[in-house]
Amino acid sequence: MFQLFHIEINSQQSLQSQLRMQMIDAINSGAIPLNIKLPSSRQLAKQLKLSRNTVVLVYQSLLSDSYLISKERSGMYVNPEIGAALGDRPKPAKALKTNFKNKFVGQAQVTSDTSSPDNWHQFKYPFIDGRFDESLFPTKQWQQACNLANGQKGRKHWFSETSDDDPQLVEQIKTQILPRRGIFADADEILITMGSQQSLQLICELLIHPGSRVGFEEPGFVEMRRLFERKGANIHYQNLDEEGILVDSELAENELVYVTPSHQTPTAITMSMQRRQQLLAQAEQFDQLIIEDDFEFESNFLGAPHPSLRSLDQHNRVIYCSCLSKVLSSGLQLGFIVAAKEIIDELRRLRQMLSRHPSRFSQRAISHFIELGHYQSFMLKTHKIFYERWLTLREALNIYLPAAIHTAPIEGGTAFWVMGPEQLDGEYLRAEAAKLGILIEPVKRYFAKNEYPSNCFRLGVAAINQQDIQAGVALLAKLIGDLSDSKSISQAKGVLLNNASLKNYLEGAVVECQMVYGIPCQIEFKSDGTLIGHTYGKGNENESDVGRWWIKDNKLYRRWQLWSYGETGRFYVVADNHSLSWFDENHRFVRDLIKLPGPNQPLSTGIKINSKLVLVD
Amino acid sequence: MFQLFHIEINSQQSLQSQLRMQMIDAINSGAIPLNIKLPSSRQLAKQLKLSRNTVVLVYQSLLSDSYLISKERSGMYVNPEIGAALGDRPKPAKALKTNFKNKFVGQAQVTSDTSSPDNWHQFKYPFIDGRFDESLFPTKQWQQACNLANGQKGRKHWFSETSDDDPQLVEQIKTQILPRRGIFADADEILITMGSQQSLQLICELLIHPGSRVGFEEPGFVEMRRLFERKGANIHYQNLDEEGILVDSELAENELVYVTPSHQTPTAITMSMQRRQQLLAQAEQFDQLIIEDDFEFESNFLGAPHPSLRSLDQHNRVIYCSCLSKVLSSGLQLGFIVAAKEIIDELRRLRQMLSRHPSRFSQRAISHFIELGHYQSFMLKTHKIFYERWLTLREALNIYLPAAIHTAPIEGGTAFWVMGPEQLDGEYLRAEAAKLGILIEPVKRYFAKNEYPSNCFRLGVAAINQQDIQAGVALLAKLIGDLSDSKSISQAKGVLLNNASLKNYLEGAVVECQMVYGIPCQIEFKSDGTLIGHTYGKGNENESDVGRWWIKDNKLYRRWQLWSYGETGRFYVVADNHSLSWFDENHRFVRDLIKLPGPNQPLSTGIKINSKLVLVD
Repeated sequence: MFQLFHIEINSQQSLQSQLRMQMIDAINSGAIPLNIKLPSSRQLAKQLKLSRNTVVLVYQSLLSDSYLISKERSGMYVNPEIGAALGDRPKPAKALKTNFKNKFVGQAQVTSDTSSPDNWHQFKYPFIDGRFDESLFPTKQWQQACNLANGQKGRKHWFSETSDDDPQLVEQIKTQILPRRGIFADADEILITMGSQQSLQLICELLIHPGSRVGFEEPGFVEMRRLFERKGANIHYQNLDEEGILVDSELAENELVYVTPSHQTPTAITMSMQRRQQLLAQAEQFDQLIIEDDFEFESNFLGAPHPSLRSLDQHNRVIYCSCLSKVLSSGLQLGFIVAAKEIIDELRRLRQMLSRHPSRFSQRAISHFIELGHYQSFMLKTHKIFYERWLTLREALNIYLPAAIHTAPIEGGTAFWVMGPEQLDGEYLRAEAAKLGILIEPVKRYFAKNEYPSNCFRLGVAAINQQDIQAGVALLAKLIGDLSDSKSISQAKGVLLNNASLKNYLEGAVVECQMVYGIPCQIEFKSDGTLIGHTYGKGNENESDVGRWWIKDNKLYRRWQLWSYGETGRFYVVADNHSLSWFDENHRFVRDLIKLPGPNQPLSTGIKINSKLVLVD
Repeated sequence: MFQLFHIEINSQQSLQSQLRMQMIDAINSGAIPLNIKLPSSRQLAKQLKLSRNTVVLVYQSLLSDSYLISKERSGMYVNPEIGAALGDRPKPAKALKTNFKNKFVGQAQVTSDTSSPDNWHQFKYPFIDGRFDESLFPTKQWQQACNLANGQKGRKHWFSETSDDDPQLVEQIKTQILPRRGIFADADEILITMGSQQSLQLICELLIHPGSRVGFEEPGFVEMRRLFERKGANIHYQNLDEEGILVDSELAENELVYVTPSHQTPTAITMSMQRRQQLLAQAEQFDQLIIEDDFEFESNFLGAPHPSLRSLDQHNRVIYCSCLSKVLSSGLQLGFIVAAKEIIDELRRLRQMLSRHPSRFSQRAISHFIELGHYQSFMLKTHKIFYERWLTLREALNIYLPAAIHTAPIEGGTAFWVMGPEQLDGEYLRAEAAKLGILIEPVKRYFAKNEYPSNCFRLGVAAINQQDIQAGVALLAKLIGDLSDSKSISQAKGVLLNNASLKNYLEGAVVECQMVYGIPCQIEFKSDGTLIGHTYGKGNENESDVGRWWIKDNKLYRRWQLWSYGETGRFYVVADNHSLSWFDENHRFVRDLIKLPGPNQPLSTGIKINSKLVLVD
């Protein structure tokens, strides 16, 4: 039997621990018979090519753990108490004859499609959200926190059978996490949960009964909608604009409003400050409660993050739910709720009734993780990584899909909500993209109503490598072009400019275009070949860049220092008075621009386009 | 500011880690201003009496974690990005003017009393269940399991966002835990949960709707009853006898039956094999499902544990719930359900909808804990500890309260269900006992109906030290005697035996009495002064002992080798033909016995008792 043991010298696990586990496995499986004397430590050491000391220590540990017993003058044997507990496998149970289905009165509603397949790792360009590479996890730091939690001091708390939370964790959340969202809470205004979804479940259990009128974002967080539906809520689906959920008389009719203000799920729109104030005022006027789901406050990339609703709330009407970083969530599962003490008291009793408290070991280890500063530095690190990916993706969309898509002017989040050309079928695109190794996210699941914009899809940065983003978007852009029948130069209205007319038309001109995320951009073509560009959106996040432009082979060449990754672009230009369009070398439409009124002459020379393209210098 | 740092040389934590945490705390709290240069490592080391290397390493770690920034030719400063995130504390939110209560439509039902107070640690004799001393926790072994889970191989699984469980943990439960209950299941027949209570909640969610007919033990597990009530079930409360829940036509009318066969909650009665078969047959005949809650299968002390219902179930009608040892539960929170694949599939979807999956780190660490053999040896160790306490408590009840109480003939569990004298008020006893440092458990909470036996209470062995059990029961017995007006010798019927009549009456006699747990016991008084005793209950767990008996000062003296802790007992004996009663030195009633027919003479000499006791030699 012992010949089958396989001890790896270079394993992560010690030789002792490997031998121990294999011995236990053999004992439990009955592979070592009860009445057979074990080989002596000397014999076994020789056989397995281990030091005798290793075998002696393993034998001793198995003796003291009652796996083995020692018989005087005879040797070591498997403890029959262990061996006896495992019987033979009886015949498998017969299947039930009746139909289980008629007994399932409370099945979970099934959401037809998921955001991404479980084998996403196998795709080269996973533009998805909510999935992460395990290399992001701060293993060493977490290990240190576990060690501290296992220390003498930590353990006492584990055995408390009260419904209270770990006071040290509450203190850390209160002083290290909440102030970053502008929230200052007392300990009895905080409840720890087994993750965001449990937070939402508990709130539903407390506040929703059949017919409760609930205001809900459309599109919105489908997992929350399912909880409301399960409790029989009367859900009012409220539309969004670029400032977030619409606050109007229809919303006012609800008892409870669920919102995701930091980055709306799924569109990533950040609720404006004005909208926040309107929402809070309405809640006070119409005696509403608000659930603020702040599940990813770490990803505010542009500008200062708006203060949370809870921090602005002067009337204790906001129930704030958040969790550890999404990156840690799947592994560690910890959420928290901040609300009025009266509400927290009730939620605590419900938690105790439905599932008891979250694991006390986890609570203490996470508390140390925060206290050691590891959480904060982890947040800074992932913020940086996601920010870089986010900017890269935004730029790539701008370069490769400037005319084909629109995104909302968002300030953060880990995903873009993309509106493609009207005739695009997002689901078909998703299927075709997957064949090329590109994953994009479906959006139908977020809509409660039957109509939904089928030309929309989502692109996330949580899982994709920074260096693959540009190539992935380029590939996706080509596919969208193929699928959506994009305008070719032969269909363009106006004249195709040649070397001479290009120079005449552009020298000294200022043209304007729209970024895909809705921000206008002006570009000045100086006669010395300098290019000056700047954006001028609503916020204070305007950017500018300089570059060079020149004309060659009847094409416009341009290279920015930073924009478009500093790469050279080449475009055919078709002009129709003040409107101009750029086309790529394959004569495919790239983007429309407008020439601002200025000193230049209106177009005089060039090639009139009819059905066939003719270039004349 | 740094003068306030307090570094302990002999702390469990390293100097580095202490300094780091205090620095972070100071940075986060704003105690170190943004524009002030930090002291050099040399200065700070001198000030805090640390080696310079310690300070350098801490500065470096804070730099790389972005807590500090380094300005060239100037020194180190707090990173303004960190400092800026924490604002001043705004004015506390105003309380809501309206009454929250009208919004709480789904409050948890409050169970009026708990089994034991949170300060149970402060009582010398905590005869309670479900609370444990933290010294029982296998810290080193758990630490080892955490280390393995944090290893490279373990981490990959944490990031899976599927609803699947950790396959390694499922495998360990399947091969190492379930076979000890006779259960052999496929992986898709097992679901991991965040503890037993969540298991029960999920099952309720799936199977119960308003009006569902549910059979439930009376008395029974109150936390389960609350879940049924919350879902609007029509609960039928079914009485128990000494074999467990009664299986009759009333039970047959339910769609679902919830039972705790291993050790019934709260009476600890083990369901007999015959009753198990009846219950399963009824389920098949009347198309019922059975929830088998096996929350403490580790504490089967006497005889071989009966096979679980699930293992006997040939028709897939049993949904089996269990968890890690109760001792580990509060700290680690992990449960599991075994049932037909169809049921597990539905429960998995519900779990995903209501709370997502249990923490993957915990799943992996627990899987290693089992695989390393630590779980099994932990179970053996706690089994031994609880078994010793349980036997000691049983013996103490037998010695100190032989006439005052009854317990069911139970085979295990960590608590005794005690019936006191009829006129005893268990709640009053509990209050009075607490004043003496004794905690006993109330029983009212386990009864759904209004009437309940107010002379009952529970005594547990989970928390009390082995060496305090005897003294605690002695103290409790005295209190029960005081409260329940126990019979004094002056009220006894018969004659009080003196030296001569004792000898005549007892020499060669065989007398019989009942143990408090309902098992009969025979004692033979040999004429050579030897005492021979043996019990003869239903099972094969009969015990025997030998001892000495003698007569002195008109009292019977006896000392067993093992029974009654081998201590000498002294009793006055009052005999009325074949009935005899023992009284203690304070003339208080101890127990009744019966003299079996034999060669001895019927009683002829002695003192007739009237109102006043007179002893004559």
